[in-house]
Amino acid sequence: MGLSTSPPSGFRDFLPEACAARHQVVETISRVYRAFGFLPIATSAVEDLEMLMGKGGGDNEKLIFKILKRGEKLESAQGGDLADMGLRFDLTLPLARYYSRFSGQLPHPFKAFHIGPVWRAERAQKGRYREFFQCDADIIGSESLVCEIEVISAILAALKAFDLEPVVALNDRGLALGQLRRLSIPEDKLGAACVILDKIDKAGEEAVRADLAAQGLERAWELTGLSLADFAPVDRKAVDTLKAIIDSVNESSGRQAVEFSSSLMRGFDYYTGPVFEFRHPRLSGSLGGGGRYDRLTEKFSGKPVPACGGSIGFERLMLLLDESDAGAKVEGPDACVLVFSEELLGVSLRAAALLRRAGWSVDVYPGSGKLKAQFKYADSRKAKLAVIIGPEEAALGQVKVKELSSGTERLTTLEALAAS
Amino acid sequence: MGLSTSPPSGFRDFLPEACAARHQVVETISRVYRAFGFLPIATSAVEDLEMLMGKGGGDNEKLIFKILKRGEKLESAQGGDLADMGLRFDLTLPLARYYSRFSGQLPHPFKAFHIGPVWRAERAQKGRYREFFQCDADIIGSESLVCEIEVISAILAALKAFDLEPVVALNDRGLALGQLRRLSIPEDKLGAACVILDKIDKAGEEAVRADLAAQGLERAWELTGLSLADFAPVDRKAVDTLKAIIDSVNESSGRQAVEFSSSLMRGFDYYTGPVFEFRHPRLSGSLGGGGRYDRLTEKFSGKPVPACGGSIGFERLMLLLDESDAGAKVEGPDACVLVFSEELLGVSLRAAALLRRAGWSVDVYPGSGKLKAQFKYADSRKAKLAVIIGPEEAALGQVKVKELSSGTERLTTLEALAAS
Repeated sequence: MGLSTSPPSGFRDFLPEACAARHQVVETISRVYRAFGFLPIATSAVEDLEMLMGKGGGDNEKLIFKILKRGEKLESAQGGDLADMGLRFDLTLPLARYYSRFSGQLPHPFKAFHIGPVWRAERAQKGRYREFFQCDADIIGSESLVCEIEVISAILAALKAFDLEPVVALNDRGLALGQLRRLSIPEDKLGAACVILDKIDKAGEEAVRADLAAQGLERAWELTGLSLADFAPVDRKAVDTLKAIIDSVNESSGRQAVEFSSSLMRGFDYYTGPVFEFRHPRLSGSLGGGGRYDRLTEKFSGKPVPACGGSIGFERLMLLLDESDAGAKVEGPDACVLVFSEELLGVSLRAAALLRRAGWSVDVYPGSGKLKAQFKYADSRKAKLAVIIGPEEAALGQVKVKELSSGTERLTTLEALAAS
Repeated sequence: MGLSTSPPSGFRDFLPEACAARHQVVETISRVYRAFGFLPIATSAVEDLEMLMGKGGGDNEKLIFKILKRGEKLESAQGGDLADMGLRFDLTLPLARYYSRFSGQLPHPFKAFHIGPVWRAERAQKGRYREFFQCDADIIGSESLVCEIEVISAILAALKAFDLEPVVALNDRGLALGQLRRLSIPEDKLGAACVILDKIDKAGEEAVRADLAAQGLERAWELTGLSLADFAPVDRKAVDTLKAIIDSVNESSGRQAVEFSSSLMRGFDYYTGPVFEFRHPRLSGSLGGGGRYDRLTEKFSGKPVPACGGSIGFERLMLLLDESDAGAKVEGPDACVLVFSEELLGVSLRAAALLRRAGWSVDVYPGSGKLKAQFKYADSRKAKLAVIIGPEEAALGQVKVKELSSGTERLTTLEALAAS
């Protein structure tokens, strides 16, 4: 018995077509983010455990793949703290560290995009992976609502590149909390009420109302029926900001892209202001989201820096694109040079080299077996042409060229072929 | 005191310019590999520990960042095996697993390229990282020397795209071992002799001779003076193969790219035939390398499949490119739209949206502070133009455009600008 050929549960390999499709999607998102003025950054996949766990530890701790200490450190740690590092579980916390480290060398404000894998030690299940990509765009160092508008617009433009036009649900956590207080929800129950209300889309009205009732929070339900204008008594400035974001994005996108959603909360408790989520009718969860987090850098630099960011849920996007079959296909080479025999290997390789110098993408059959197998290979590689040099062609200084889609063959010279 | 702003020792963050340069180098290598008929693949960063350690464990074990078990598995493991998974330390072992898993769905033979990070728990030191990229190209399922020729040629073409023309040192491990036996090196000392001889480039002749003498292996030194023809009595077929590889690559590259090197061994003991290494005068170590490994899939599928592959040492390549300053620069946006005042935010955002629809890359200053700071931002972002709409311009339906390199300003309409 050999070792398992699968990666661990929740981890994935990608076949060439999937790999090419994922790469093309990443490149497209990068291109749009860049065109909106965001700069590329990259951070370490591995972080100090202390950094990942934060002061309280708590919820995040369960998500972290921890890395075992090594050597002497491990020996002296037996029974105690066995791990010193861990894999990043999002790209926002590393960005906050990055900004605190490099702010002196970066433009102010700093617009960054960050695309890469993150890891979460969640129970593996269908559609939920333990290694997945995120595509973040953030603006650090500005309190202006331009940040929200630009982050949302950039993500919408990136998704538009795939013909996707999601709806953006928008809320402000401060407004929601303020209104819950006005509805007499006690201070120590605000968090619980938010968590329950946030599940309306997934769990449905009935389940949410039952959950609220079970905790004596019936009145919190009233929040869900309110329009943006109804929140003016809570915080007029916050309401005006949301209104300006909605108007601006809707105008530039030419449609009713953004809608106020009084029950949207977003899970992460580092959000301090507007929060938003991208929703698509063909997905039950969200296609991405984000918000304002004005205090996250505090952990590193000791001082809060205003920030706002959003993220495309890459794996969910790929799910949508796979369904609509809009994923990229691997393109075959211009030509596949077959190897008629060992003796004619040299002339075949010279032919490939000449075509490559002329700018062609060229595959060479790696071997010199039966021509039937070689043609099968050229077909499976989706080559446009097969180029064969048998003894007769070699003697005459010619090559045989077969167009694989039509099956038509012709004799020509290599020079004429390269120039064609 | 905040948390450290640096990643763990041996790990790195990348500033936008470095990030853009690295990305462009990866894209260039991918493009060349693809043009040579290699297909992209991707594998999980995390592997089962059993897979990474192999049967014997041994040397690799020290290299592996192990991932701590979680939940109940950890509790029941206290004192025993604390880790169940680990980070991949190269891309070849995952490829062998991948091929064994998917061979029924892949072309035969299979030409793959695999670019991504690997992790090694080595002592961090200058120029040696614990997270770094590899860029592999492999051909699986063929014994033909076309594989060696194509892998070496593809890597040379990728490096040529950066104006690098390294020398390729070529040897065959079987030839070297056979010759050492003929020099009466005892069977149980062959490994030691190889390890010592392999260090000539780094340690120099004197040190190597001393090391050999210390183990009574003086005669092994004779190996280093031999030409390829001298090995004919050991294995004529292997000599002919190396000769054919050298001739073919030298002819297609138009220079003496490949040289026989009787002392080249390459560290990994999975190599079973020809081995090669890319060397550049400005680097003390190698710029990459590879070889034939005909038995690696055996671990997974139970049967050996012939294979040959090579790798570009990405971090060393970046070192060379940084030195010659050939790295990519981050390109600035076509325009940076400034925000004259809060009141004129809407008209500024509309201007940005219009230019973007016209295909421009456009940054918007995220805020509405002093124009001086905004111009400084536009400069730091290397924008070509700054676009300003003050109250006068707004009243007249115009925009002010400043060319940032020359400082010249002009008034125009947004429509004329978008069409320019």
